[in-house]
Amino acid sequence: MLKKILIANRGEIAVRIIRACKELGIETVAVYSQADKDALHTQLADEAVCIGGPSSKDSYLNIANILSACILTGCEGIHPGFGFLSENPKFAKMCQECNIKFIGPDYQTIELMGDKAMARKVMKNSNIPIVEGFEDEIKSQGQALDIALEIGFPVMIKAAAGGGGKGIRIVRNAKEFEHNYNTAKSEAKACFNDDRVYIEKYIENPRHIEFQIIADQFGNVIHLGERECSLQRNNQKVLEEAPSSFLDEKLRDEMGKIAVKAAKSVKYNNVGTIEFLVDSSKNYYFMEMNTRIQVEHPVTEMVTNVDIVKEQLKIASNLKLELTQEDIVINGHAIECRINAENPRKNFTPCPGKITELNMPAGLGVRVDSAIYCGYSIPPYYDSMIGKLITHGKNREDAIVKMKRSLGEFAVGGIDTNIEFQYWILEQKDFIKGNYTTSFLNEKMVNEDA
Amino acid sequence: MLKKILIANRGEIAVRIIRACKELGIETVAVYSQADKDALHTQLADEAVCIGGPSSKDSYLNIANILSACILTGCEGIHPGFGFLSENPKFAKMCQECNIKFIGPDYQTIELMGDKAMARKVMKNSNIPIVEGFEDEIKSQGQALDIALEIGFPVMIKAAAGGGGKGIRIVRNAKEFEHNYNTAKSEAKACFNDDRVYIEKYIENPRHIEFQIIADQFGNVIHLGERECSLQRNNQKVLEEAPSSFLDEKLRDEMGKIAVKAAKSVKYNNVGTIEFLVDSSKNYYFMEMNTRIQVEHPVTEMVTNVDIVKEQLKIASNLKLELTQEDIVINGHAIECRINAENPRKNFTPCPGKITELNMPAGLGVRVDSAIYCGYSIPPYYDSMIGKLITHGKNREDAIVKMKRSLGEFAVGGIDTNIEFQYWILEQKDFIKGNYTTSFLNEKMVNEDA
Repeated sequence: MLKKILIANRGEIAVRIIRACKELGIETVAVYSQADKDALHTQLADEAVCIGGPSSKDSYLNIANILSACILTGCEGIHPGFGFLSENPKFAKMCQECNIKFIGPDYQTIELMGDKAMARKVMKNSNIPIVEGFEDEIKSQGQALDIALEIGFPVMIKAAAGGGGKGIRIVRNAKEFEHNYNTAKSEAKACFNDDRVYIEKYIENPRHIEFQIIADQFGNVIHLGERECSLQRNNQKVLEEAPSSFLDEKLRDEMGKIAVKAAKSVKYNNVGTIEFLVDSSKNYYFMEMNTRIQVEHPVTEMVTNVDIVKEQLKIASNLKLELTQEDIVINGHAIECRINAENPRKNFTPCPGKITELNMPAGLGVRVDSAIYCGYSIPPYYDSMIGKLITHGKNREDAIVKMKRSLGEFAVGGIDTNIEFQYWILEQKDFIKGNYTTSFLNEKMVNEDA
Repeated sequence: MLKKILIANRGEIAVRIIRACKELGIETVAVYSQADKDALHTQLADEAVCIGGPSSKDSYLNIANILSACILTGCEGIHPGFGFLSENPKFAKMCQECNIKFIGPDYQTIELMGDKAMARKVMKNSNIPIVEGFEDEIKSQGQALDIALEIGFPVMIKAAAGGGGKGIRIVRNAKEFEHNYNTAKSEAKACFNDDRVYIEKYIENPRHIEFQIIADQFGNVIHLGERECSLQRNNQKVLEEAPSSFLDEKLRDEMGKIAVKAAKSVKYNNVGTIEFLVDSSKNYYFMEMNTRIQVEHPVTEMVTNVDIVKEQLKIASNLKLELTQEDIVINGHAIECRINAENPRKNFTPCPGKITELNMPAGLGVRVDSAIYCGYSIPPYYDSMIGKLITHGKNREDAIVKMKRSLGEFAVGGIDTNIEFQYWILEQKDFIKGNYTTSFLNEKMVNEDA
């Protein structure tokens, strides 16, 4: 087992990783920006090293400083968490060159899966269903339009280097094509410093359903079932569930096998997620693979009782997977609400500031993964997510009941949060029926405003 | 289902009951003393009524005020929690007379089981194994000595109306008898206003193992397995586990059946606990029955996934038990550490005061049942327990690892707590081996001091 690792992240995921390390007897080194001196991850780790100024660029994205901190503190590995450097192949490669174990897949896999067009190609060659599209280099706007016409509108233009819903445009006819093509390219350039885009058929009102994969270094790959992540606002996940009420046992099994096959096709190692789009006829298409731990991993943990972060650490320690596919039993239902410091009434503007009062819910089947405490000042430099509220019930109805009770108990003074907004979601009839696609929330909110 | 109930308690158990009610859609009325105006249970309930001054006698034991509050707020039932009026047959009877559902067994059962000597008698008549002893009225000190001589030393003198380890004396020879008999009687008088005592054989170094019972109003009785409660300091439980590592499957099954039989023999209704003493040869003896929810109920909840407080509320609403004995599967292992505001270095003196900093542990398999928050002032009038930290793991070792991690994370500023003391217990070799009896902690602490 790794003896000491550095956690190249902040917030609740850094705390989450520290917890797993402590339970495995791994020493931890936190890194923190000048704005995170009093952050919980800084306090809970065995050691903490300041790596730069408040802006991410100067600290959590500062590769040189992070590697220096790692070497100076004698860490054997780095856990990147999610966001920041977690899917940066250059960082993973530099870790390898410095003889530091990057806790995730090898950099070539990160690179391959990070290029969404390349990933499509690889999956297509392995007979994994993908949405019809064109993943080779597009040389001109004229060629792009020809491709779109051949696929047939509506189409989606997506940044090849994309992620997090950025650099995406839906085009419904040839007339709108030019403008959208150009804005997608310039957004891709701005967000990822890479203006390559690819084009695929746009699936109307799909479900976003993803499978959690665990793969060790000895070729053993299993999946932990799926997560329903269709509840999104502007392509950002808001609430996640496990399992999905849209899948039956047969489809779950089939998609799970395809997900394992997809992971095997790239000789995947460590934990990852295969994201699918599922259309209303239950056709499913590989969308992308995330080569890191995900925000929503706790819902899978609650229904499988597998600690996914511990699995990451064990695999990175060259241990063999102890679990087999048969060991994985889905028990009950779990829901996660992302709790953000933001004002839903002001277009979800982030609301950093000092937490003056705090009561977090608890009880049987309730889990809060967070990094906040009373008196803590949320800095304005990072993501607005301040915690995740997860409930686990005997069935979906039970998990919803627990979530409503828990949201009702969750009190955060001094800042605005989306707690009431999450409660509102739970009261929508179609949500209660489990009847929602990725467009549900945006449409619902437009109607409510009207 | 009951529509609205009053919770005649405070602290974490009041919060625990409010949570169960909210999930069942039952409206809640909290009662609070003048010292508990800002308490969490007062804030979380749908309504809150002040019932008197800070001392328990004036508020949480003030039957007239509680019944008035219940009637004025239109509550159909009262949940008594534990302690306070929870095992007071007079209170249960008055509820019945006022047409208020007392959430617990009927007052006759409370009365019967509350008289420890009577309870022994009933169980003896039902062929439940009890420790050899004399449960009839003892008329004189001379007769008492004769009884002791006949049973054979060592014997235990216990208050008939006892509970909570009060009014108990162990006597090892005839010479010490008189003094101990008199002090037991006067302690019984002082604590319970009832100087009746009974005498039984003293079991050296027993285990305290108890079975959780659920019984509905239709004669269905099941047990939820056992709790190991031998870790005690001065007859007060400190740490509890489920299951007990001392029982094998056969003995567990046998004792479970005896516990169900014991409950059936008194036509028990609602949830309750059958406490056994188990000697080193694994002979077991009925000790007493607690006719209320217990502090340590969460360890059973974690390993069975049954919400015991919800079961209480459903049974009190005349619903039939949905669970059968076959449904109860013990999954993994759970441990509870009672977190007290006290100073273990100063003979565990209670340390009320203001909580100036607070970080509670969380994560997969970690639960904190508490009623504290940052800025809360713990009043000096009540029990020093401020919360319960419960961990659930795949096995005992895993639960211990999670507990150590969680205790390490638990930070309470402004007051003294027993958190470090609990950590110390978890590091004792015999604890790690599961090798401990009710005398373990007292002996260990004497040795450490020496």
